[in-house]
Amino acid sequence: MSHNNKPRVVIIGAGFGGLYAARTLEKADVDVLLIDRNNFHTFTPLLYQVATSGLEPGEIAYPVRGIFRGKTNVRFMMGEVLAIDHVQKSVTVQTDGDTREEPYNYLIIAAGSVGSYFGMDSIAGHAFDLKSLSDSVALRNHILKNFERAAWSDDPAQVEALTTLVVVGGGPTGLETAGALYELYNHVLRKEYAYRPDMHARVILVEAAGSLLLAYPEGLRHAALRQLESLGVEVVLGCAVAGAVAGHVTLDDGRIIPTYTLVWSAGVKASPLAEALDVPLQRGGRVPVQPTLQVAERAGVYVAGDMAYLEDPDGKPYPMLIPVAKQQGILAARNIVRDLKAEASKLFKYNDRGIMATIGRNRAVAWIYNRVPLTGFIAWVAWLGLHLITLMGFRNRLNVFVNWVWNYLTYDRSVRLILEHTPREAEAVYERERDYGKIVIG
Amino acid sequence: MSHNNKPRVVIIGAGFGGLYAARTLEKADVDVLLIDRNNFHTFTPLLYQVATSGLEPGEIAYPVRGIFRGKTNVRFMMGEVLAIDHVQKSVTVQTDGDTREEPYNYLIIAAGSVGSYFGMDSIAGHAFDLKSLSDSVALRNHILKNFERAAWSDDPAQVEALTTLVVVGGGPTGLETAGALYELYNHVLRKEYAYRPDMHARVILVEAAGSLLLAYPEGLRHAALRQLESLGVEVVLGCAVAGAVAGHVTLDDGRIIPTYTLVWSAGVKASPLAEALDVPLQRGGRVPVQPTLQVAERAGVYVAGDMAYLEDPDGKPYPMLIPVAKQQGILAARNIVRDLKAEASKLFKYNDRGIMATIGRNRAVAWIYNRVPLTGFIAWVAWLGLHLITLMGFRNRLNVFVNWVWNYLTYDRSVRLILEHTPREAEAVYERERDYGKIVIG
Repeated sequence: MSHNNKPRVVIIGAGFGGLYAARTLEKADVDVLLIDRNNFHTFTPLLYQVATSGLEPGEIAYPVRGIFRGKTNVRFMMGEVLAIDHVQKSVTVQTDGDTREEPYNYLIIAAGSVGSYFGMDSIAGHAFDLKSLSDSVALRNHILKNFERAAWSDDPAQVEALTTLVVVGGGPTGLETAGALYELYNHVLRKEYAYRPDMHARVILVEAAGSLLLAYPEGLRHAALRQLESLGVEVVLGCAVAGAVAGHVTLDDGRIIPTYTLVWSAGVKASPLAEALDVPLQRGGRVPVQPTLQVAERAGVYVAGDMAYLEDPDGKPYPMLIPVAKQQGILAARNIVRDLKAEASKLFKYNDRGIMATIGRNRAVAWIYNRVPLTGFIAWVAWLGLHLITLMGFRNRLNVFVNWVWNYLTYDRSVRLILEHTPREAEAVYERERDYGKIVIG
Repeated sequence: MSHNNKPRVVIIGAGFGGLYAARTLEKADVDVLLIDRNNFHTFTPLLYQVATSGLEPGEIAYPVRGIFRGKTNVRFMMGEVLAIDHVQKSVTVQTDGDTREEPYNYLIIAAGSVGSYFGMDSIAGHAFDLKSLSDSVALRNHILKNFERAAWSDDPAQVEALTTLVVVGGGPTGLETAGALYELYNHVLRKEYAYRPDMHARVILVEAAGSLLLAYPEGLRHAALRQLESLGVEVVLGCAVAGAVAGHVTLDDGRIIPTYTLVWSAGVKASPLAEALDVPLQRGGRVPVQPTLQVAERAGVYVAGDMAYLEDPDGKPYPMLIPVAKQQGILAARNIVRDLKAEASKLFKYNDRGIMATIGRNRAVAWIYNRVPLTGFIAWVAWLGLHLITLMGFRNRLNVFVNWVWNYLTYDRSVRLILEHTPREAEAVYERERDYGKIVIG
């Protein structure tokens, strides 16, 4: 089954769950195959800073093979898992130009989550997700292109729509994105289009509930709202997005916002890979797991992170957060090692250090150990420090630190590149590689 | 003609020629319109370091609007010039979703050069240029994808072709690229695919002439060859590429090299925009200019940089080099100012400080003031220093410096990301923006 007869552990996803599972198994007497569609691990909490021109894509990504260099029992495969055969114990992987069957003794599924539009396809077609590095580069290109378009437009309505940015969702990602978008405009774009004083961007944050940051205590919710509004972001509470077309977004109270930019951070659901397990799914398409993170009636299959549905002692599902994914990845890996030694599995117990969200320069809220509330500058410094520490790779930490200091001192956002392949260029790239499977010599 | 009745100078291209022309006119009593298809200026000498995962794209690019922030007489337009009407004195610009006629009193054409395949279309379809940031990201993605493909291939011939990299052209770009490719393999990729000892990459540099670096004195040519071979690059001299298909390259001596990667730095020609002027062109499609950089019989039209054909006092055309482009851009701008004051134009005189090329870690050759030859470590340090100084923007200099120190100390190349949109994704991006011209409200 494996190239050296060790038990084979297949891990799907090199996000926080899968990556920490693989690291936990680095020295175990198993053979690990780690599969991801990207050749890098992404530090997702900073995606919004790539989308708003503050950081380079490569500064928040780390090549998977670099993480496991010298670890002879961990191999990496770039590809997408299409199917799971839990009877034969194998997964079907679509790699670049090949479809492979990869057998497993143990399987850890940690493929994360995707944006959820609650069935509103028209919105999905016009919205930007912020789930991947590719998403964030696409959003960066889009915003910068719209400002270039606006700069040469003589139609005031068109200029307004091109420079109005709507963010949906009052959770941490929505706040962080809205704040960073406004700062990008206010500190940088406003000055670079100074000869067009009619180009005054608006950033509008829309939240269906009556309050921002529902997971936070009331004092912090109010602090977040105050800080966001003091920055310049318009906040619309108690309103949901009802529809979107090119040029405007409609709210459910009938309001129409002219815009070409709709950023979606209002809902997520488990990766559709959950369906491949053929078990009844829970809310948000998540896979119900036992407290050991095993899937009942699927021998050797574990789920970790956003895809796993497990309730805490109070009966509430564990949130889709990085610390949960990390800790579950580690536990799933350890339970596999225990299983191999015929030891009893341990149960998941979340070590919760609290939650935090940043809103912009000197602005943040934090709820440390779910006991100590922090706001403003001190919460912001705590946020920066925590994110620098948890970022993978010393070079990335150094670069992000240099750029944060630079951005703070100069108010600049330097990575304002519109860098993309047109469909024709992308087609040419694929055309050139289409025949790569065939070598024709002589 | 202009929004404030000042004479209007249109500059085509934000490369070194166009950018320095615009900076020279920053304080002049003219209105400048600077046009480029990208919203950033690219530091082209370091493109090969982006292609080989050593630097981030954003570290060698600088947003044009950032350069001219606060300079009220310089405006930027992102778009491609399709036509020049020298009778009506206007240019046709294709912007993102609009075609515009932009009038000029003076025109500076500095659209640079493109790869020249000497009419061999089959090669063009399989080769990678290194002329733009987009090119270098495409090459980076391609090389990393090929190593991922090779890692899971069981076909030895396929593995060999996927990991053989052919660079054509023995000029500085060819040497630098070949050296950096070999270092990427030797210091990084070799270690990350250590369990596949059969994946031993080859980097082959092919030059049609009998020697590398034809512009350099003989001692430096030999030093360059020695340093390149000591690094591990295979050098093939006196051989031209005769053809390319998916899977192999054919040389004109009949040799066949199995490869999927052909990097082209063997020839360049002037941007095809030169034809829009409707004057007889010189070798390489360059526009003949007078020593004032004006085009004869095209009133108010100047050409600077790679597109301009002008002979030095010895009767040799000035080379397509950055210092020539910079100095010509500045002179063209100054001659416009002189013309407005009815002063006589000055003639171009090249201030030549010499040429240099790096080959890899501690390896380089330099020909300072075309008098002092340097090789090895001291030439390499000189190369690094000069490129750091001439890079635009303090943040970029800081980031490149940090990454160079990092890469030198750790032998790492950290930006190993395969980050691209598939044709379907690129199509979706365009689809979403297709209707941007229409606002449909109510």
